[in-house]
Amino acid sequence: MPEPRRADARRNIERILAAALELYGSRPGVSMSDVAKAAGVGRVTLYAHFPSRADLGAAVAERAVAETVAALSGLGLDALPADEAVAAMLRGQWRIFERNEYLRGNIVADVEPERLRAGHDPLMEYLTALLARGRAEGVFRGDLPTGWLITAFYHLVHAAADEQRAGRLTPAEAVEALVATVLSVLRNSAVGQRD
Amino acid sequence: MPEPRRADARRNIERILAAALELYGSRPGVSMSDVAKAAGVGRVTLYAHFPSRADLGAAVAERAVAETVAALSGLGLDALPADEAVAAMLRGQWRIFERNEYLRGNIVADVEPERLRAGHDPLMEYLTALLARGRAEGVFRGDLPTGWLITAFYHLVHAAADEQRAGRLTPAEAVEALVATVLSVLRNSAVGQRD
Repeated sequence: MPEPRRADARRNIERILAAALELYGSRPGVSMSDVAKAAGVGRVTLYAHFPSRADLGAAVAERAVAETVAALSGLGLDALPADEAVAAMLRGQWRIFERNEYLRGNIVADVEPERLRAGHDPLMEYLTALLARGRAEGVFRGDLPTGWLITAFYHLVHAAADEQRAGRLTPAEAVEALVATVLSVLRNSAVGQRD
Repeated sequence: MPEPRRADARRNIERILAAALELYGSRPGVSMSDVAKAAGVGRVTLYAHFPSRADLGAAVAERAVAETVAALSGLGLDALPADEAVAAMLRGQWRIFERNEYLRGNIVADVEPERLRAGHDPLMEYLTALLARGRAEGVFRGDLPTGWLITAFYHLVHAAADEQRAGRLTPAEAVEALVATVLSVLRNSAVGQRD
């Protein structure tokens, strides 16, 4: 009976990923046992599907990226000028970015940086397209490589999440400081600034 | 004979810190045994002075910060307008910032973030004073908290070092992208931009 067994496996993988996403996104220091328990599967089943923390971490990151891109696509950013789209993205997705920051803390020591980076490709592509549109509209700068601007964007998101987590900025302050800072980085300084 | 023994201890601590700074700054994955060997001391001596990786890491970070501040003080930045001072700091100290990035990779998992942050106080104070001067000169923005701007500054330094280490930017490209980006973040957009 291979069919039901495959369906069981798919269901277990789903349960594990959903539990890991929830746990990794809510607190630091989550163990593989915590994930197995929350998913309602045994450790043997967990390790059968994800032989190492690196494998689980990479799969969770991939899932989080897919959810983030899906949520972004629902914001209707295409209708906005590129700089307003970036601001709306940060304001609208801040809770998801925050969750992803906790995820990152749980995953970053387990997964090689380049593998983690590759898992972010769909989000990178989304941002790359948005930056290209902003350049074409003359709103964003053209003097720095797109790859660098995206890296700077991510590091500033991490910075704002860190400041909020440490209690040095409230969530509202963190996201507004982030919006102002990211727009300063992206905008073409030759063009009048709208805010 | 307590005097010679104290002198020995001081010499051993010096040797350990010098070796750890050199090793931690040059490659990832340095072990306590690597440090003991490079310092020419036994593991017992190493652990007598630094009971844990966290203690050694915190001491190395403190030493690196002190060296960085001393080097910065030698650059004569006080004579420059604040924005030019920031650019000169980044260009002049890029090799030190780079080394500190490797250090960070070796230390960050061992030392609690808040302890590591506290170790950076002298550098934070230096940057805080420079930012305050830039605000007083009307060159730097006044609409965002200084603490946030300093955090953003550090995260952008990490970003540039990461990009360089991954081979996505040459050292020259990394530092120039960093200078342009940091100045975009710090500058008062109401003022004409010089560079």
